[in-house]
Amino acid sequence: MSLDYPSVKPHDRLQAALAEDLDAVGAMIRDRMASEHAPRIPEVTAHLVEAGGKRLRPMLTLAAARLCRYDGPYHVHLAATVEFIHTATLLHDDVVDGSEQRRGRPAANLLWDNKSSVLVGDYLFARSFQLMTETGRLDVLKVLSNASAVIAEGEVLQLTAAQNLSTTEEIYLQVVRGKTAALFSAATKVGGMIADAPAEVVQALYTYGDALGVSFQIADDILDFAGDATKTGKNVGDDFRERKLTLPLIKAIAAGGDVDREFWVRTIEKGKQRDGDLEQALHLLDQHDALDRAREDALAWSDVAKQALRSAPKGDLTDMLHDLADYVVSRLN
Amino acid sequence: MSLDYPSVKPHDRLQAALAEDLDAVGAMIRDRMASEHAPRIPEVTAHLVEAGGKRLRPMLTLAAARLCRYDGPYHVHLAATVEFIHTATLLHDDVVDGSEQRRGRPAANLLWDNKSSVLVGDYLFARSFQLMTETGRLDVLKVLSNASAVIAEGEVLQLTAAQNLSTTEEIYLQVVRGKTAALFSAATKVGGMIADAPAEVVQALYTYGDALGVSFQIADDILDFAGDATKTGKNVGDDFRERKLTLPLIKAIAAGGDVDREFWVRTIEKGKQRDGDLEQALHLLDQHDALDRAREDALAWSDVAKQALRSAPKGDLTDMLHDLADYVVSRLN
Repeated sequence: MSLDYPSVKPHDRLQAALAEDLDAVGAMIRDRMASEHAPRIPEVTAHLVEAGGKRLRPMLTLAAARLCRYDGPYHVHLAATVEFIHTATLLHDDVVDGSEQRRGRPAANLLWDNKSSVLVGDYLFARSFQLMTETGRLDVLKVLSNASAVIAEGEVLQLTAAQNLSTTEEIYLQVVRGKTAALFSAATKVGGMIADAPAEVVQALYTYGDALGVSFQIADDILDFAGDATKTGKNVGDDFRERKLTLPLIKAIAAGGDVDREFWVRTIEKGKQRDGDLEQALHLLDQHDALDRAREDALAWSDVAKQALRSAPKGDLTDMLHDLADYVVSRLN
Repeated sequence: MSLDYPSVKPHDRLQAALAEDLDAVGAMIRDRMASEHAPRIPEVTAHLVEAGGKRLRPMLTLAAARLCRYDGPYHVHLAATVEFIHTATLLHDDVVDGSEQRRGRPAANLLWDNKSSVLVGDYLFARSFQLMTETGRLDVLKVLSNASAVIAEGEVLQLTAAQNLSTTEEIYLQVVRGKTAALFSAATKVGGMIADAPAEVVQALYTYGDALGVSFQIADDILDFAGDATKTGKNVGDDFRERKLTLPLIKAIAAGGDVDREFWVRTIEKGKQRDGDLEQALHLLDQHDALDRAREDALAWSDVAKQALRSAPKGDLTDMLHDLADYVVSRLN
């Protein structure tokens, strides 16, 4: 985190700088989530879309296009596409995880049912591809269909890696790419592509989005153990209770001896948790410096993101993206 | 059913005529369902794909392309795309319906879990769009993304229309388009498009696929009440027990008086079914000629399909598609 870090969050500065574009994205989302025959579709979608969310992903697309001096209309289609894909994955995730809350409201799968969440997610996914075809850009379709495949692959991998103590940092990174980084990097990349930016700029935007996403997710996984519940809105230890092998746990397990291992086998692999186990897990994380070492990784990825921006055109939006890479890890201070 | 109806089923004749292309489609499906990181994906997909299924949809694409004298490689991509979309919807349908069997095997959601079915379906859907981009044809992407949206919309509509006695024949048709006809018509249309067939031929192929799909689904819904369980592999009355408002029921309900209505409210709307209700439903269907009238509709759609083929190039494959339209309703004799 740089010393001259401005007091207004970079996310809010991006929102202000992109206000007009974001309004256009909002209008397009409302227009395209409509369904002539099935009113259930806009009901479910609106429940999620209107709950807000940070609109981070569409902002990345808009910022990337604008900092490359794009002045056509299609960055709006692509930003709406990215938000539709994100919303579709949230709907399906909530079914997969059996979630009860999303964005501070009851999850759609509880308000309606799992069926609606699955099918409305499918509808939004199809709609996102319709939107993309309107841009007339096959190269963009390729990037976003690849990202969609990586997302689904990462989720399946997470499913099979859960509770598996032999999960490596490499597998964790694959899962994180699927959960977060694949859509971040596709979002920034297609912004550059629609602006016909030079190949090295497009590559830089991709690398920025990918590294930002990885950094963001590692920070999230650290905060699950070390966060202030009043700020994160999550309970400390949720991932431990759900037996998810996130980076801090993977580091602690790898560093621990046989006695530790018995504890992890019982609590994570077999899921036989009892009172005091979270405290013991936190103790082991501390003993092996696992949270600090994960924090170093998050900072390193944030640096990769910032470095990548050196190959992008200079300007206010580029500065805000730079500060955003600082901001996602500043939560760890 | 024409008098000179050949003894070999048109489906089997198509399969023989397209054998080489179908092998290429099979190879492409096996290749593209692979996942570098998540072996669960090909496991689940193979369970479904290798159980066979009739491969009707990819055959429609191959036949349409070939009868338009296409000699490029991309009809194989499109046929594999269509099969992937179909497989993805089957995986999601089984979650939505809580199915226990699919293609004579335990449904994937039981062998693995609902989570895997949702996520592997998403993966196949993304893969299908990747495959399409390889054809370099945005117009084809538009048709298949539209079809995907109609499919999801139709499924949501079926969800909300279920148990609703005010479901009209118009809504039923929308549901049928989503369940069956949208992918049939997209399958035949993109076959013509990839061959650069004239617009009126592409339209004829679309109309054929749509009408074939509607006819096929109406026939299925009739057989649910009138079929021979040993041939259909389904129990008579499944739709009635699941309170699905299919065409025969919609016709019987519309024709019935207030006394009938009490019966339908209790059995369909409230779902309070007891012994003898299926027999009473069959009696009411008979009293109002509902099965015969639905059969007339199926025959009329089959005629629409055959008429459409008059605008298509003549040849053996066109003849087989013609006979296929007869065959789907011949099951009702």
